[in-house]
Amino acid sequence: VSDATPYQAPGTFMGVPAGADPRGSRVAVLGIPYDMGTHATRIGSRQGPDAIRAQSAQIRRYLPEFDLDPLAELNPVDLGNVRLVPSRIQDAFERIERAMLPLVEAGVTPLTMGGDGSVSLPQLRALHRRYPELAVLHFDAHTDSNSGDAAEPYTTATTFARAREEGLIDPQRTIHVGIRGSTLQPRALQVAREQGFEALTIDDVFERGLDGLLAHLHVRLAGRPVYLCWDMDFFDPAVAPGVCTPAWGGVTAREGIYLLRRLAGLQLVAFDVNTVSPPHDVAGMTAMLAARVMLECLFLACRGPGA
Amino acid sequence: VSDATPYQAPGTFMGVPAGADPRGSRVAVLGIPYDMGTHATRIGSRQGPDAIRAQSAQIRRYLPEFDLDPLAELNPVDLGNVRLVPSRIQDAFERIERAMLPLVEAGVTPLTMGGDGSVSLPQLRALHRRYPELAVLHFDAHTDSNSGDAAEPYTTATTFARAREEGLIDPQRTIHVGIRGSTLQPRALQVAREQGFEALTIDDVFERGLDGLLAHLHVRLAGRPVYLCWDMDFFDPAVAPGVCTPAWGGVTAREGIYLLRRLAGLQLVAFDVNTVSPPHDVAGMTAMLAARVMLECLFLACRGPGA
Amino acid sequence: VSDATPYQAPGTFMGVPAGADPRGSRVAVLGIPYDMGTHATRIGSRQGPDAIRAQSAQIRRYLPEFDLDPLAELNPVDLGNVRLVPSRIQDAFERIERAMLPLVEAGVTPLTMGGDGSVSLPQLRALHRRYPELAVLHFDAHTDSNSGDAAEPYTTATTFARAREEGLIDPQRTIHVGIRGSTLQPRALQVAREQGFEALTIDDVFERGLDGLLAHLHVRLAGRPVYLCWDMDFFDPAVAPGVCTPAWGGVTAREGIYLLRRLAGLQLVAFDVNTVSPPHDVAGMTAMLAARVMLECLFLACRGPGA
Amino acid sequence: VSDATPYQAPGTFMGVPAGADPRGSRVAVLGIPYDMGTHATRIGSRQGPDAIRAQSAQIRRYLPEFDLDPLAELNPVDLGNVRLVPSRIQDAFERIERAMLPLVEAGVTPLTMGGDGSVSLPQLRALHRRYPELAVLHFDAHTDSNSGDAAEPYTTATTFARAREEGLIDPQRTIHVGIRGSTLQPRALQVAREQGFEALTIDDVFERGLDGLLAHLHVRLAGRPVYLCWDMDFFDPAVAPGVCTPAWGGVTAREGIYLLRRLAGLQLVAFDVNTVSPPHDVAGMTAMLAARVMLECLFLACRGPGA
Amino acid sequence: VSDATPYQAPGTFMGVPAGADPRGSRVAVLGIPYDMGTHATRIGSRQGPDAIRAQSAQIRRYLPEFDLDPLAELNPVDLGNVRLVPSRIQDAFERIERAMLPLVEAGVTPLTMGGDGSVSLPQLRALHRRYPELAVLHFDAHTDSNSGDAAEPYTTATTFARAREEGLIDPQRTIHVGIRGSTLQPRALQVAREQGFEALTIDDVFERGLDGLLAHLHVRLAGRPVYLCWDMDFFDPAVAPGVCTPAWGGVTAREGIYLLRRLAGLQLVAFDVNTVSPPHDVAGMTAMLAARVMLECLFLACRGPGA
Amino acid sequence: VSDATPYQAPGTFMGVPAGADPRGSRVAVLGIPYDMGTHATRIGSRQGPDAIRAQSAQIRRYLPEFDLDPLAELNPVDLGNVRLVPSRIQDAFERIERAMLPLVEAGVTPLTMGGDGSVSLPQLRALHRRYPELAVLHFDAHTDSNSGDAAEPYTTATTFARAREEGLIDPQRTIHVGIRGSTLQPRALQVAREQGFEALTIDDVFERGLDGLLAHLHVRLAGRPVYLCWDMDFFDPAVAPGVCTPAWGGVTAREGIYLLRRLAGLQLVAFDVNTVSPPHDVAGMTAMLAARVMLECLFLACRGPGA
Repeated sequence: VSDATPYQAPGTFMGVPAGADPRGSRVAVLGIPYDMGTHATRIGSRQGPDAIRAQSAQIRRYLPEFDLDPLAELNPVDLGNVRLVPSRIQDAFERIERAMLPLVEAGVTPLTMGGDGSVSLPQLRALHRRYPELAVLHFDAHTDSNSGDAAEPYTTATTFARAREEGLIDPQRTIHVGIRGSTLQPRALQVAREQGFEALTIDDVFERGLDGLLAHLHVRLAGRPVYLCWDMDFFDPAVAPGVCTPAWGGVTAREGIYLLRRLAGLQLVAFDVNTVSPPHDVAGMTAMLAARVMLECLFLACRGPGA
Repeated sequence: VSDATPYQAPGTFMGVPAGADPRGSRVAVLGIPYDMGTHATRIGSRQGPDAIRAQSAQIRRYLPEFDLDPLAELNPVDLGNVRLVPSRIQDAFERIERAMLPLVEAGVTPLTMGGDGSVSLPQLRALHRRYPELAVLHFDAHTDSNSGDAAEPYTTATTFARAREEGLIDPQRTIHVGIRGSTLQPRALQVAREQGFEALTIDDVFERGLDGLLAHLHVRLAGRPVYLCWDMDFFDPAVAPGVCTPAWGGVTAREGIYLLRRLAGLQLVAFDVNTVSPPHDVAGMTAMLAARVMLECLFLACRGPGA
Repeated sequence: VSDATPYQAPGTFMGVPAGADPRGSRVAVLGIPYDMGTHATRIGSRQGPDAIRAQSAQIRRYLPEFDLDPLAELNPVDLGNVRLVPSRIQDAFERIERAMLPLVEAGVTPLTMGGDGSVSLPQLRALHRRYPELAVLHFDAHTDSNSGDAAEPYTTATTFARAREEGLIDPQRTIHVGIRGSTLQPRALQVAREQGFEALTIDDVFERGLDGLLAHLHVRLAGRPVYLCWDMDFFDPAVAPGVCTPAWGGVTAREGIYLLRRLAGLQLVAFDVNTVSPPHDVAGMTAMLAARVMLECLFLACRGPGA
Repeated sequence: VSDATPYQAPGTFMGVPAGADPRGSRVAVLGIPYDMGTHATRIGSRQGPDAIRAQSAQIRRYLPEFDLDPLAELNPVDLGNVRLVPSRIQDAFERIERAMLPLVEAGVTPLTMGGDGSVSLPQLRALHRRYPELAVLHFDAHTDSNSGDAAEPYTTATTFARAREEGLIDPQRTIHVGIRGSTLQPRALQVAREQGFEALTIDDVFERGLDGLLAHLHVRLAGRPVYLCWDMDFFDPAVAPGVCTPAWGGVTAREGIYLLRRLAGLQLVAFDVNTVSPPHDVAGMTAMLAARVMLECLFLACRGPGA
Repeated sequence: VSDATPYQAPGTFMGVPAGADPRGSRVAVLGIPYDMGTHATRIGSRQGPDAIRAQSAQIRRYLPEFDLDPLAELNPVDLGNVRLVPSRIQDAFERIERAMLPLVEAGVTPLTMGGDGSVSLPQLRALHRRYPELAVLHFDAHTDSNSGDAAEPYTTATTFARAREEGLIDPQRTIHVGIRGSTLQPRALQVAREQGFEALTIDDVFERGLDGLLAHLHVRLAGRPVYLCWDMDFFDPAVAPGVCTPAWGGVTAREGIYLLRRLAGLQLVAFDVNTVSPPHDVAGMTAMLAARVMLECLFLACRGPGA
Repeated sequence: VSDATPYQAPGTFMGVPAGADPRGSRVAVLGIPYDMGTHATRIGSRQGPDAIRAQSAQIRRYLPEFDLDPLAELNPVDLGNVRLVPSRIQDAFERIERAMLPLVEAGVTPLTMGGDGSVSLPQLRALHRRYPELAVLHFDAHTDSNSGDAAEPYTTATTFARAREEGLIDPQRTIHVGIRGSTLQPRALQVAREQGFEALTIDDVFERGLDGLLAHLHVRLAGRPVYLCWDMDFFDPAVAPGVCTPAWGGVTAREGIYLLRRLAGLQLVAFDVNTVSPPHDVAGMTAMLAARVMLECLFLACRGPGA
């Protein structure tokens, strides 16, 4: 407790400076308070970014195993939340895309906090200007690759189908990891695979083992700019209850952190942590775990290819 | 515990029969799981109807002060929820209106459970076919009479402005009771009054006293078919925390029940109980109180003009 | 959202039709709101069935790994709850048995939701009319095979001792899996084994490994009609906190689902999922997991011997 | 923090000494962990006594308005809980009665914590040995005077009907205060009045005013030994949510304390505070309020007739 | 949703600008995350300021009854929290005092959020430089005027005794309103009065009536610079459960707001809202009510003498 | 339910007798309600001991796998809590040390319940009189071996640095197990190792495997009197959310119990279970798990070297 002023600034992620200009930072934190992709009963992830910021007070800056201080290396800024009204769906998508542009233009790595899983599409649209054909590494209980219908094309369940149709991502380098649970869509796995995506079920993950999975991912994604999309429902609901569409049988916190840390070396150009739904959370645990996942993303931003 | 079958049917309001045909009942219960009129952070009233049904297990059928069994008199049916997807806004409004039509045609009194305060507009549209110019008795912390903007005309804040523009209600017989709190709209009271509505603040209510208020309401509404709209945020948040837009300084449960019971004698042709938001509720209390409000509505349905 | 009527029926398990006649269905869902076998402080599992129904809204109908729609195959009906008053103990047991009879007579597979672990005995009494000597596969932290005393013979701790004395089950084909924790009864494991039961502790389970356990169970139970009894306290309290008698050290959700799915091929003639105690649950997680266990039971009902 | 030993004893009511012998105290605290009179879904008041003890840590010993230290005057002892198993109904009643006898014989005023409302009957049986015809002052949302049926005579709803039949109380001096809500029993008020009891609804209370009520009670009960029975559901559920059968429209904490304090001067020979159901409580508030009600009972024990 | 940047700043009170320089604002918001004055079990008010900020998202800027926008009039800044470590007691007091100095020097009205009730003393020390003998209007269930002991002079219970000894306040113009509950200190009321303070119990308040109280306060405090200290435990625990030392029998939200608004005209030179303890709060209600109290303080800052 | 008296004593750990004299017991339970070593926001572990006692009602006396009744073997007594005021830091340390002395002198094994992790130091000071150079086996997410600063030497983060400086422990036989998470201190692992301590990260634990770890611990600690310090944050937050400084990636309940049981054979002379923070707990789960850890400690007290 020593500082130039007698005051502590309120409420940013991990206490990093607030600001509206990402230049000068290697990473910028951005909240996306949008949850209109959620059809199910458990709506509320619009409150996700603020809940994560509040719980990030439990996270500290040094990683003891690496003697690393990611905040010192990256100088992150917290841009706040995208200014939007969720029920104005099309307008909100445009605002999210627009809010991403200063980062894309400045070459600053975004670290976003959802919002539900549909917030990825406008991010991909913005990133497309810099990365014509992103690879996607997507940890989630769901493929988010359903076809949807004409009346309602943009939901959490259709994100990557839309991104592929719009030419934003490379389907051959889009990998869904952790699929399980029950679905409204028949043939959900096949539908994803027919689009060229790789879809690994949670049973696939544990048959390979975490190390086997990691080896596979490094082979598939080496040398490519990768969009890392981490849906908090990749964790088991016993670990992360506050999500939009809980699916039993996910990974533990230890397994999740084990995987994240060992993605070091990949060229991860954007981090998207989504699906924290505070109204369904228990004592802020899911938001606190998301804050920890974000710290690991900062670690990965320090440890890209050649680092 | 004696009955023709060894089973108890699951999950209807107060255990009344489930069914899809309101004919044969004097009152029909209908859930409206829609919350897209809510701009604020506290979304989730789409879960309201099911929460109220669950808590209605705490409500019993006899009213001891009146030795009355409203279920025996009214033979209500629980129609379930309107089949809709909240984010499909226009489609949802049409579905709500359509779901009301069998009741309107059969002359069955609707007793609806929201959903947020924007569910009233499609109900009024349906009722308009039978009642060309409804009076409205609206208990709420908010006027719900803002002008809104062209991009987003239908929200919880604009319901009665829209209803008036569409000619569904009689502005001279539309009374908002209990206004208080802070608003996004400047001049909210004046805006309502400029439309011809009466707007009584909570201070107005307690200056008149509950009996004074009741006398006024009976004078204003006698002999007219009245739409009774009860927003649960008319209660103080200490009583009903699980609402969309809590506003401190509302009535207690005793005051609310006191007012409701003494509306007997009015010609109440529709009951609309809305704004229970289960994700923000505490131990189901708001839903349990809404179930009690609905029991009082059943009492009022037994005690119309001349009863 | 398309359907013959504009309404969705309220509150059944996974939205299957409600009804009082199980004929025409391959599986019938039945709630047993009885908790008088619980001596400990944590009473309240009488609320279990309704909590499971509410949480089953989170479960969807397709299993992606199998491209299977169990609801389409089995056409289940939700019979509601047995009509009983818990404190009328003997009468309640008779009512449970009587409520089972239409299923037994029609050859419909019951899928029951407790209630505490003592609800199994009256189910076994009813099933005895069709299956003279049932095998029992019992996943639980406790043996439920204590002797009890004359003053109070029927509790959660004595279910299988009583069932054996009444000749309802085959002790040589009764297997308790997952025993752990602390007990009021000295020599609890030996007492179970002296009755001919197999009792595997949780350490036994993990020494064999899940696959080793499954191989053992298939050998022991092949070709026999089996009563599958799944006490939710088989899961660790971190996964399923809302149970009557929590015992640390149980399985994760992934391990439990792994075991369940691989019981395919057994002749499971009744499914009994019990011990959800909503007053002690956290955000409905235990009830939501029980709903998922029940979905896996529906899967098993599709995948019996030869399927 | 100074004392003969370096230790603080665990867990008694307000930290008074624990003991098994009431002699030497003017008041003895006793918990009655029994809830088998509850038919409704909200069971769990067996946990009431321990919850009240835990929350009594928020209560301090001096009453500033009176400069009174009731603990110093009364030297209360906490006897612990009656040793019983709730589901052994008849046995439990006998144990409660037996546990009361040492107090009755020694002339020590009991201050009991339920348990549900059915725990009053065995207390009255014990007190009958000393007080042949007790007056009863009963604050409750319910009359607890239903007839019940032969199969199940002893429930929370029948306590005072049974007590009258057994000749334990004086019906002409039995007053129920605060009746409201909905009931399973038709004609509940008339049924109570036909037994000679006075039954005041909550509307009666507020028409008289609190001071009017108090004057009436002092006239009716002066000079008689009175059993004070305080059911926590006399409070509104917004104040005391954790009760067995919540009924909206009850008194506030201030009103309840106002009434209690002004019972000073009556000859209150037993205090019975019941119906705290911890599984349905919110943050321990109901138990904390019950502890405060008990402090007011200690005040009343200091301020009997002539004090 | 329109603004110069596409972003919304995170986490200030009501979204006002964050900053470290109060000049240019008529009011400055400051959090004081200190709770070492709390001896009781319910510690945690150090989390109060951040909880209030989070809940202030429920508060909007217009007061409809007055058609007033206090944010536009006062241009408040949120300075964040005082930088301190609670367990370093003396150092923390110095830091609080130092953090107040820029406001005192610039003549900016402080609006502080505790922290427990002991945070008032260092504020008074800082204000003393500008206001040699402040009047104090203190709404609280407790007098906070105990003598304490030499070993531990600075606690929530001794604030105003210390302030008087240090000559910071005018004892003849120090008024405690709302005293009730039980205390550790014998003669707590007398002890306060012996120091020259006025101490009104909650019974005093309701005997005078709210209007009578207000008239009295205006007479006593007119023409004097007044420190307004609002302890959230002035509210009843049913309204504000999340406080350090709950005391049943306090005011409702309506009564509290009624009193606050009618303090308009007094010369209130500092606003101190304390005692929100988030770990003991229920669904953030106490913090949300504190945010509303602060909005009323902003109203009062607009409506000083002559306004 | 049979006993000499009709009463059950309130509130001790597992219902063992309360008392102030440890002689006659092999183990004595002692609560230490102190949390002033916690700088972070999540204060409240002063409530830990009482929460553990309340949850110990879920623990029973027989361990079925061993047919062992530790209570019969050890005859434990519950001494209650150390009488202290947390904010009087130095005085509290002295009181803790003094409260330990009767146990040290009588050779009774202490089984303490924190309080935060700083309560270990005064315990070690007392034990030092009997065991000049204790070995320490410390399960924790943190090393608790930071240097701290002169202004504030005694916190949860500095316990073992201070103990080493005071010569209370043998640094070469002090082992920290389970280190992970993020820290305020740079080089936290190296700082611990430079003091001679062994520090095993959670990754180290799982690389060795639990059996490998156990073998290592038995080799390192055989033949030495060992202080067993179990910080509840060694468990993952999904298992034990109610701790002071949660760190994702810890062990499951099964893994923790597996480790504990296999410490049998070591000469464990004191058991210290700390860091339960009830305000941050979920449904009492962390306290319930701590009670179970304490039962395992009783088991270990029965199974020392040669047992």
